[in-house]
Amino acid sequence: MNSFGRLFRVHIFGESHGKVVGINIDGCPPGIPIHSDDFVKDLDRRRAGDKGTTSRKEDDIPLIQSGVFNGFTTGTPINIVFNNKDTQSQDYEEIRKFPRPGHADFVASKKFNGFEDYRGGGHFSGRLTVCLVAAGVIAKKVLSHHFINHKIEINSKLISVAGNCDIEKGIQLAVEANDSVGGIVECVVDGLPVGLGEPFFDSVESLLSHAVFSIPAVRGIEFGLGFAAAKMFGSDHNDAFIDSQGRTKTNNSGGISGGLTNGNQLIYRIAVKPTSSTPQKQDSLNIKNDKIESFIVKGRHDLCIALRIPPVLESITAMVIADQLLI
Amino acid sequence: MNSFGRLFRVHIFGESHGKVVGINIDGCPPGIPIHSDDFVKDLDRRRAGDKGTTSRKEDDIPLIQSGVFNGFTTGTPINIVFNNKDTQSQDYEEIRKFPRPGHADFVASKKFNGFEDYRGGGHFSGRLTVCLVAAGVIAKKVLSHHFINHKIEINSKLISVAGNCDIEKGIQLAVEANDSVGGIVECVVDGLPVGLGEPFFDSVESLLSHAVFSIPAVRGIEFGLGFAAAKMFGSDHNDAFIDSQGRTKTNNSGGISGGLTNGNQLIYRIAVKPTSSTPQKQDSLNIKNDKIESFIVKGRHDLCIALRIPPVLESITAMVIADQLLI
Amino acid sequence: MNSFGRLFRVHIFGESHGKVVGINIDGCPPGIPIHSDDFVKDLDRRRAGDKGTTSRKEDDIPLIQSGVFNGFTTGTPINIVFNNKDTQSQDYEEIRKFPRPGHADFVASKKFNGFEDYRGGGHFSGRLTVCLVAAGVIAKKVLSHHFINHKIEINSKLISVAGNCDIEKGIQLAVEANDSVGGIVECVVDGLPVGLGEPFFDSVESLLSHAVFSIPAVRGIEFGLGFAAAKMFGSDHNDAFIDSQGRTKTNNSGGISGGLTNGNQLIYRIAVKPTSSTPQKQDSLNIKNDKIESFIVKGRHDLCIALRIPPVLESITAMVIADQLLI
Amino acid sequence: MNSFGRLFRVHIFGESHGKVVGINIDGCPPGIPIHSDDFVKDLDRRRAGDKGTTSRKEDDIPLIQSGVFNGFTTGTPINIVFNNKDTQSQDYEEIRKFPRPGHADFVASKKFNGFEDYRGGGHFSGRLTVCLVAAGVIAKKVLSHHFINHKIEINSKLISVAGNCDIEKGIQLAVEANDSVGGIVECVVDGLPVGLGEPFFDSVESLLSHAVFSIPAVRGIEFGLGFAAAKMFGSDHNDAFIDSQGRTKTNNSGGISGGLTNGNQLIYRIAVKPTSSTPQKQDSLNIKNDKIESFIVKGRHDLCIALRIPPVLESITAMVIADQLLI
Repeated sequence: MNSFGRLFRVHIFGESHGKVVGINIDGCPPGIPIHSDDFVKDLDRRRAGDKGTTSRKEDDIPLIQSGVFNGFTTGTPINIVFNNKDTQSQDYEEIRKFPRPGHADFVASKKFNGFEDYRGGGHFSGRLTVCLVAAGVIAKKVLSHHFINHKIEINSKLISVAGNCDIEKGIQLAVEANDSVGGIVECVVDGLPVGLGEPFFDSVESLLSHAVFSIPAVRGIEFGLGFAAAKMFGSDHNDAFIDSQGRTKTNNSGGISGGLTNGNQLIYRIAVKPTSSTPQKQDSLNIKNDKIESFIVKGRHDLCIALRIPPVLESITAMVIADQLLI
Repeated sequence: MNSFGRLFRVHIFGESHGKVVGINIDGCPPGIPIHSDDFVKDLDRRRAGDKGTTSRKEDDIPLIQSGVFNGFTTGTPINIVFNNKDTQSQDYEEIRKFPRPGHADFVASKKFNGFEDYRGGGHFSGRLTVCLVAAGVIAKKVLSHHFINHKIEINSKLISVAGNCDIEKGIQLAVEANDSVGGIVECVVDGLPVGLGEPFFDSVESLLSHAVFSIPAVRGIEFGLGFAAAKMFGSDHNDAFIDSQGRTKTNNSGGISGGLTNGNQLIYRIAVKPTSSTPQKQDSLNIKNDKIESFIVKGRHDLCIALRIPPVLESITAMVIADQLLI
Repeated sequence: MNSFGRLFRVHIFGESHGKVVGINIDGCPPGIPIHSDDFVKDLDRRRAGDKGTTSRKEDDIPLIQSGVFNGFTTGTPINIVFNNKDTQSQDYEEIRKFPRPGHADFVASKKFNGFEDYRGGGHFSGRLTVCLVAAGVIAKKVLSHHFINHKIEINSKLISVAGNCDIEKGIQLAVEANDSVGGIVECVVDGLPVGLGEPFFDSVESLLSHAVFSIPAVRGIEFGLGFAAAKMFGSDHNDAFIDSQGRTKTNNSGGISGGLTNGNQLIYRIAVKPTSSTPQKQDSLNIKNDKIESFIVKGRHDLCIALRIPPVLESITAMVIADQLLI
Repeated sequence: MNSFGRLFRVHIFGESHGKVVGINIDGCPPGIPIHSDDFVKDLDRRRAGDKGTTSRKEDDIPLIQSGVFNGFTTGTPINIVFNNKDTQSQDYEEIRKFPRPGHADFVASKKFNGFEDYRGGGHFSGRLTVCLVAAGVIAKKVLSHHFINHKIEINSKLISVAGNCDIEKGIQLAVEANDSVGGIVECVVDGLPVGLGEPFFDSVESLLSHAVFSIPAVRGIEFGLGFAAAKMFGSDHNDAFIDSQGRTKTNNSGGISGGLTNGNQLIYRIAVKPTSSTPQKQDSLNIKNDKIESFIVKGRHDLCIALRIPPVLESITAMVIADQLLI
């Protein structure tokens, strides 16, 4: 349920407006140096503040509760929490009346019989991705300190917003329309060895997509040419081998063959929907009086949640790779 | 690794040209009537024979080895095997020389140190999807006999081939070009209750995509509007609620909110690449002499593997839903 | 690794002299009322203070960090931590020189390459059982609120110390000898339905013993007559049925048949070794100079750790039963 | 449920009087030589025939269905089945009337709503331990071929029958009394490295006991001195270190400290109850007329099932160790 991974295993917990959000990381090898500075860069990349992001500001200071001793991982579970401070929970009383379209409010209330912490989306909030980033920092350190033969580099970036490859332009469109927008985020990984992934059910695509769809707002994923491959002939799509390390002339498969990494660059892209909490007025059901009414979503939200996803995508990718390498 | 599911749990085994391929299903409730006739329809839909499919013909007779007694499931593991008969393993000696582009040959050999059963793709062969179909038949029976309140209907179909929505035309293109082609397969599910899926890591999208990417040749998956959502404004994408059961005016989200089913029709699509074993001549590395040479893939193959995927897609969808309902 | 359970799933973390010890509970149903008072009784029973227990005193106040909202469980992970306050870590520098006989010091150092938090036994300390008690409190509440048809009662008590069934006398022996002593703890469960446990590998005995042996110092477990059964004839050991609910004339099997609960009282006993940290002088290896030398274990320790185990045993039993009932 | 292990993972299936019993082994490394001869010795040791064992005779020929190619493991699942031939199912119609005391008949019928395959105990039969032996043969080969630095030796033997350390005498007692008897089986392992097992929940004792209690008729387990330790003083029980490899003067702990192997000989013992199917007349409930009546269990049974357990115990021990070494 709230766990992911086989050996490098993470357990996530917390609610957007509760005391904390946090992550428990089991299976991290001992002897990895961990400093609080290690978290700064990726947490900063994820943090709000730029145009198109929410005005909620959290310190995002990772508090390491266990599993690190004298600056090194001990091999026992690493528990990290982030305190929630800048919460304005009163904004969310309204959602008891108007379950927000596109949000988990309605389904969460049905599933948990009304006992869910509904404030700020509770356990379903994008706030929890800060925990994924913390786990990703640890995972990246595992890759660089434990698997030093490989120089594994994971890079993710936003490649289009609202259909525009010029990202600034896409955001500007959203600001002008005073509406939220979607985007596409790409992730590439260099330096992977041949053979990561496990048949039959733990293909690299299976593991990455499983993790990716835990990130709120993701609607699709494609590897290599992805959906474009469905329109092609085999003779155009196939990647011909050019050497005995398995390098190929083209990389249409995005670095994966038969569900296993093939030694070429791993490439995948995800589709991120527009933030459900648009500032626009919406017509939806008022469940108190069972009538369709106009309302505006309160709270502070991102216009383009995709802006904040690249470090999250890198993190879950690092988690999957670290887990596979440890197996 | 070769297992999937939490309570309704399947374990797959076998190789394309070995004695058998098979599936072991744990966690099926007792008392579900099972007859060999139950398997006929879906296995027939998956079987080769039509234009664009391989000339390899297998009986595909499911042999139930355990877990069924006097016509009903017992509650203990159901073991089903399919004998492999129509194998022409000599076709595959060539791949020791030319690892087939787009296939698992090269990576499997690296991963398993040359001990893999390379004949017909071995454990990586599409042949194993016959086992998924058998598991899907059981899963569908669980849905119809154990969850009788819900009238859950799962339907999957090929919606485009080589970029053509007219499927016949797409296949004709492939036949004329004597080349393999890709396609897009859609799956829709009606009758699902609200709230299937589990935060944080077991969203419905996570579970379905995990299973989907175990099907060979799948390159992408999208839910609802999927990649199209990345180009939209939030006010256009949001699905407004129209009643207290959670029905929405539009269904852009494809029946999923916050990773949970929302009571509307579940819709997703997958991209299937062109069969790697195109009949066209290919230039690739001869690993015996380390030179790039022309060669033609031997063996019997589908021109459009996507043709045979709809029943497989229904099956893994049924497996995921049965597992979630049992939880 | 640090996780246990299939649906009611706990993850433990923390070190004896670190910031906290804690537990993360996933899979608890929503709507269970939880108050801090609920924890008092069982935590008190486990706490030190009586004759034969350590002088280390911790408040043992459970801090609920997530998963409880407005006094009820939400259905999302419940994270509970206990701060460590009364630590005297300087006592443990000695163990870098003399790995304590009977303790994890030596093996932990080998396994974790010297990076383990060795203070107070670190992650191997009996201190972590406070987390099991907290999880047990939640599990017991699940049993009483979620499975109200059953009146499940779990009771555990110390039945012998140092071979004496008069417990006071056994403790007195230890105090007089200024040496640590072992004991036997029994656990009985009334009100269980027929059929808990799952063949083949998840028998009730398998699940309970798996959990039991995570409690430090446990050396054996037996169900029903246990080891005494090995000396008997079948006609004496068999429990004859006396009614159609499955009640039996005798209960030599301790309420388990074929690995499943049979509706009679579940009974099992565990053997607890004497606390390894005896106050007696010991001769053991000084790893700094590779010589056998006499030394005395510093730190504050229980003379009879078995005294504090009954609430822990009830807790892990409640966890196992809650998990099985939820399946 | 019917699965065990984390990386070296086995899935068991089949019923005593069904077509087959079998095992599916996932996670076995590639390149291990496997011949059918490898199975002969251990299967023979388990087979019936001697005084005190059942007259049911099965060939016990392991049929390898997948995962072995050209005499070596491929790295994909190894599926092995044993056909059931010498079945006399008519013997078991009686148990529909008289659920056999000490057997799973009654609880299985309740749990599986009467759909269970009741013939010969079905899925609960000791017959399935033949599958464990097959898995153990593979596991032992993994130990000897994959971990060649360690010379791991696993040996198990019956050490008492009906309370007699002279085994012949114990069996003779049973034959003369025409009654079934219990026994104690010991298992010792030499050559284990320091540090196998994982805190907190996967101690070596937890894993071994979990597996052990899946063997029918086991009622208790103890490590090292076990229950005797509960009567001792700490200064007598502690094992003093004598060298820097962790060797100890005594081995009261049975080779385990803090849940991890400590490099000394691993020793544990299990209590096996008398076979429930005693040839003696028993008074128990006739569920057809709800009266207590005398009856005699039909079918062919062992007088002392403990006789056949040593190779089974070695097998599950090998499985646990192989799994831990692969992690």
